[in-house]
Amino acid sequence: MSFVLSETEKEEALKTYIEFLQKPSVSASGEGIRDTAEYLKRLLSSLGVKASIEETGGHPVVLGEYSVGANQTLLVYNHYDVQPVDPLDEWVHPPFSATVSGGKVFARGASDNKGTLIARLYGFKKLVAEGKLSVNLKFIYEGEEEIGSPNLEGYIQKNVHRLGADAVIMEGGGLDAKGRPQVILGVKGLVYVELNCNTGVRDLHSSNAPIVYNPAWELVKLLRSLVDDEGRVRIDGFYDDVKPLTDDEAELLRSYDTTPEETIKALGVKRLKYPSTEKLRVALFTEPTCNIDGFSSGYTGPKSKTIVPAKAMAKLDFRLVPNQNPHKIFELLQTHVRKNGFDVDCRLLGAETPVRTPVRTRVVSAMRESAKKVYGVEPVVLPNSAGTQPMGVFTNILGINECVSAIGVGSASSNAHAPNENVEIENFYKAIQHSAEFFYTYPKIQP
Amino acid sequence: MSFVLSETEKEEALKTYIEFLQKPSVSASGEGIRDTAEYLKRLLSSLGVKASIEETGGHPVVLGEYSVGANQTLLVYNHYDVQPVDPLDEWVHPPFSATVSGGKVFARGASDNKGTLIARLYGFKKLVAEGKLSVNLKFIYEGEEEIGSPNLEGYIQKNVHRLGADAVIMEGGGLDAKGRPQVILGVKGLVYVELNCNTGVRDLHSSNAPIVYNPAWELVKLLRSLVDDEGRVRIDGFYDDVKPLTDDEAELLRSYDTTPEETIKALGVKRLKYPSTEKLRVALFTEPTCNIDGFSSGYTGPKSKTIVPAKAMAKLDFRLVPNQNPHKIFELLQTHVRKNGFDVDCRLLGAETPVRTPVRTRVVSAMRESAKKVYGVEPVVLPNSAGTQPMGVFTNILGINECVSAIGVGSASSNAHAPNENVEIENFYKAIQHSAEFFYTYPKIQP
Repeated sequence: MSFVLSETEKEEALKTYIEFLQKPSVSASGEGIRDTAEYLKRLLSSLGVKASIEETGGHPVVLGEYSVGANQTLLVYNHYDVQPVDPLDEWVHPPFSATVSGGKVFARGASDNKGTLIARLYGFKKLVAEGKLSVNLKFIYEGEEEIGSPNLEGYIQKNVHRLGADAVIMEGGGLDAKGRPQVILGVKGLVYVELNCNTGVRDLHSSNAPIVYNPAWELVKLLRSLVDDEGRVRIDGFYDDVKPLTDDEAELLRSYDTTPEETIKALGVKRLKYPSTEKLRVALFTEPTCNIDGFSSGYTGPKSKTIVPAKAMAKLDFRLVPNQNPHKIFELLQTHVRKNGFDVDCRLLGAETPVRTPVRTRVVSAMRESAKKVYGVEPVVLPNSAGTQPMGVFTNILGINECVSAIGVGSASSNAHAPNENVEIENFYKAIQHSAEFFYTYPKIQP
Repeated sequence: MSFVLSETEKEEALKTYIEFLQKPSVSASGEGIRDTAEYLKRLLSSLGVKASIEETGGHPVVLGEYSVGANQTLLVYNHYDVQPVDPLDEWVHPPFSATVSGGKVFARGASDNKGTLIARLYGFKKLVAEGKLSVNLKFIYEGEEEIGSPNLEGYIQKNVHRLGADAVIMEGGGLDAKGRPQVILGVKGLVYVELNCNTGVRDLHSSNAPIVYNPAWELVKLLRSLVDDEGRVRIDGFYDDVKPLTDDEAELLRSYDTTPEETIKALGVKRLKYPSTEKLRVALFTEPTCNIDGFSSGYTGPKSKTIVPAKAMAKLDFRLVPNQNPHKIFELLQTHVRKNGFDVDCRLLGAETPVRTPVRTRVVSAMRESAKKVYGVEPVVLPNSAGTQPMGVFTNILGINECVSAIGVGSASSNAHAPNENVEIENFYKAIQHSAEFFYTYPKIQP
């Protein structure tokens, strides 16, 4: 099939997209969250979807359900909250004006994640209009993704019976730097840790350095003990559960062809750890890491002040790969600290499970086929992203093995999380088409 | 001799002390500096001292000279500038009110260093009044001690011919926690360094951790390479020039008898590196150190933010002992960084030379003898302080080998650099007596 949109359909979808973008919904401050949830509920209802606002410990989830009485069900995950807009003075158009200019719409949330939410919904609408929907759909819209999804797991745990599905389509996807649609089959996991060392009640004159413990030294020694010269993690057992890529997955990696030169330019760094595309992609997608996010201790102003600081703090994140377990990794870290006698307190600030959906699954085949049909090129399929999403919540709690990030309106120049976030309107229409095509294709794929 | 002060002499000295304390002279802001220098010049002149205000690149030096045509000359160093007064609301009496209460005078600078300056001057006056002065005196009063003496070295270099002397009496001294007068024969040296590592133009999402360099890791690795597990410095050649204590000096150390328990209480720390007084004093006075004064990189606010920081900065101080040379140590550090391939920039922010005056010198004998006479107890004599003063400027440039910190009005409860700085008025009078006694004794000691 080819679900080409009429001008009227395009106009209506764009109108809704802009209306949605004009509603602030900043999860960090709470601004507009409740209004936007109510708006989404009305929008779902207007499309014939049974919709409800679901209370959580924090911002509400909006849930939608549309049954055609099929054997198969797809669960569509998006989030309606957005990042804060600062620095405001760098925006060319006000962030909630949703100004259309040069074929693009500019707004906070245009790419992450409101455009994709609307595109999928209008893909569903198109399919209904054409009488071609033969899969049940569930829509789950979170309001706290940009603040780390603190209540998603709890909500899903309490609603397992209502959320059953054969596959989950996460947010993400979109187009890569070369304009190719991306299909990403998994995510890295994460352990986020804060380390604190306090040795006294106040900073001391550094003439005391020979006799007192310096908490900055203690953290430096602990941190250095966590990695070898190449950055490989030296915590006992850290790599024990790492599952290597299957041949299928390793084959997929080859489609990632960003060169070191392109990467250096895009990231604005002086140099990279690896000189070849091959080594870069292996590192990026298959290596777990231990990263220092922040370190603070003592006097850091201008000139000099001679003190032994009273305290030191570091923030660390470990990116994990299947089948590392974030809670087990945190325990291994604590054991390392204790065993080596470091006087450091470890606090867990975040844990997410790494996930990889197998390549030979129905959802992957349907995504590939539908993407190729709409975009006219082979999609870039990657075994997992280099980053993290709460995909593990769906696989672990709901037991849904088919989980992918795909279908998105964003591109490499969309400025997600930055000023002047934008989406090319043509990419918005393509994502509607892709959604319709995918929903149409999925139930036709042989298991 | 016993230079007991009459009530009239006490009254006059105290009046001058209070008048001097009521003049703000904050080197950090410049407040009152010039007025105070002019006041000192007038005060010196009124005592018959040939006085001048000497311009430097910063706040002026006040120089005084009084010759009795003797073969020997003493150079008396003090500073007339004071620390800032904040936090102002913690002062019980306004910091420049010089309020007398309960036998104490409360004011910023009461102990550090205005009281000692005045006491020495009135000791000199007493001796002149009694016709007992048989040594030439030079007074050098700095206005930038509290901001690190940035212009002292340059000034002395330009005025070598005017500053010649047989011995220098630095500031410091005063009474220890047990009320004993202190005589300190030297200082540790210092190298203060800022380390910077910049890897990119902006913080990056930490999903890039597998392929980009993290400047915080680079600094952690460099720092850890500088010391072993016990904190001993691992820079090649660092200890090469360390001159062990002579037997005389080692013997002196025994007079430092502060226990670990007393130290823990005074410093407010959880524990110390050494469990015995013996080990504490050896470490405190004879070990050079490498200390982290500050470290900053990346995100250090609440909760989590997953980034690879673009830059990291650390401040380090090395306390040195005779005969380590601060400039050579800085070069050894740079060589270490280069040789080990660290991408870190090292900037020198301060260098001071360690100094020890030999025990068997005239100045030490005269200090001991005069202190015992005035205070009735053996003074505590230490081969050097655990901290740093610009003593090396006098020994290196002027070539004066006899350099000690002694004669002071302060005690362990004087709150130097803190709110409610104060001095017991009786200790002020004792310091006048001690000054007179010392000036009287010095020329009588056989070389």
